[in-house]
Amino acid sequence: MNSLAEMTPSQVRKMIRRNELVRPTAGMASGYTQANLAILKKEDAFDFLLFAQRNPKSCPIIDVLEPGSPVPQRAAPTADIRTDIPKYRIYRHGELRDEVMDITRYWEGDMVGFLIGCSFTFEHALLNNGIPIRHIEEGCNVPMYITNLECTKAGKFHGMTVASMRPIPQEDVVRAVQVTSRFPAVHGAPIHIGNPAAIGVTDISRPDFGDAVTIKEGEVPVFWACGVTPQAVAMETKPALMITHAPGHMFITDLRDETLGVL
Amino acid sequence: MNSLAEMTPSQVRKMIRRNELVRPTAGMASGYTQANLAILKKEDAFDFLLFAQRNPKSCPIIDVLEPGSPVPQRAAPTADIRTDIPKYRIYRHGELRDEVMDITRYWEGDMVGFLIGCSFTFEHALLNNGIPIRHIEEGCNVPMYITNLECTKAGKFHGMTVASMRPIPQEDVVRAVQVTSRFPAVHGAPIHIGNPAAIGVTDISRPDFGDAVTIKEGEVPVFWACGVTPQAVAMETKPALMITHAPGHMFITDLRDETLGVL
Repeated sequence: MNSLAEMTPSQVRKMIRRNELVRPTAGMASGYTQANLAILKKEDAFDFLLFAQRNPKSCPIIDVLEPGSPVPQRAAPTADIRTDIPKYRIYRHGELRDEVMDITRYWEGDMVGFLIGCSFTFEHALLNNGIPIRHIEEGCNVPMYITNLECTKAGKFHGMTVASMRPIPQEDVVRAVQVTSRFPAVHGAPIHIGNPAAIGVTDISRPDFGDAVTIKEGEVPVFWACGVTPQAVAMETKPALMITHAPGHMFITDLRDETLGVL
Repeated sequence: MNSLAEMTPSQVRKMIRRNELVRPTAGMASGYTQANLAILKKEDAFDFLLFAQRNPKSCPIIDVLEPGSPVPQRAAPTADIRTDIPKYRIYRHGELRDEVMDITRYWEGDMVGFLIGCSFTFEHALLNNGIPIRHIEEGCNVPMYITNLECTKAGKFHGMTVASMRPIPQEDVVRAVQVTSRFPAVHGAPIHIGNPAAIGVTDISRPDFGDAVTIKEGEVPVFWACGVTPQAVAMETKPALMITHAPGHMFITDLRDETLGVL
């Protein structure tokens, strides 16, 4: 029996579908891209897609499902987004109403699923380049901050960019920019280096989401646009219905991380 | 008085607006990005945006205008797409009905403008790298071919990829891939190198659009996805109304070519 890391995406999804893996997906099907999920009604889909198009760093689209279809034809043609994520969240008018392991009974014929890039992919690339990831070392969630960088608005969708922060050794900062620039489909290059206050982060020890991490002597706080942004923005916009994955419980695609690299 | 090449985008657009420059825009406002235009009714906009998202090589989006607004807020906030292109084409149900210099009287409150990347930007990058562009040398239009590469369909929009071809000296092919890979917003890396028949191009001397060019000894035909694709696909789909720029008569944005480079 292979470990979860060694299994293929479809093997892992099959276990998830049977509710045999109700836990965060980090580390599963190693080397394959994991994605954030947002499901909206068709009436909100154009504005949301436009929002994503205008804010590609915080909202990089991996796949948009055909309206009404639960099958990601490009990212995972044998999957079903209604069952293949360990845990979902149901939001009505911006309020969390339920957390479930299967959304089949919520599914309607005019729903549109969006798969949005997740930082796991570029973190692997950083690790492969010998650049340490503090929150992995400390076994906690990445710290995330609501910045003062306004997203470009689209229709009803607007709000501030949420950024994740990773302390990077001074001598690795340039390489970290290069490595993550290769992956625009999973947030790409940093949005800020070095001065948290400049982007409205006044207390680095108190993130808005996730956990604080140690910043050692000689390390620089580097900020990347975060996949929490589109969810936070959508919450603020209070659509009648929105379904997302539960934090950390991602959708595992059939795409290899490296195929998302632009060069 | 500056030459057209040395003028700023807004200076050139002002002359175009007054119908003082009814001619192809190649070479104007040098260093600034020019774009293809497609205008559709809101009812078709979601499917078209989705089509673009799924076919980023042939349909790279530079800007999507707010529904009903003729102002490209991100690409050229002082411009008006109804007047700032030298020549437009009006299509009804897929048929060319009119060619005009101003579309103000066709404008409706539910129209959505799409600015789509154009190969001028990556051609400048190739030239800056000392790689010759045959159709510029020969003073004709780039040869374009309907390939057998099917676009990923989205709603009603579907069709074959149209590719432009540039003969590249064998020793420059790798560099040509690198240079154009930097510019995914203007078609990016080639879609095929070397064997026209493999993508359904049976007679390289007879392009489907544009002009045939000389392929010299030691040169390889290299194919890039072409901005004619979204127009060709939209024509085939026969939307009730579609407005585009006339071939070669592009929209000149305020964006510098280099700012579109990913690295």
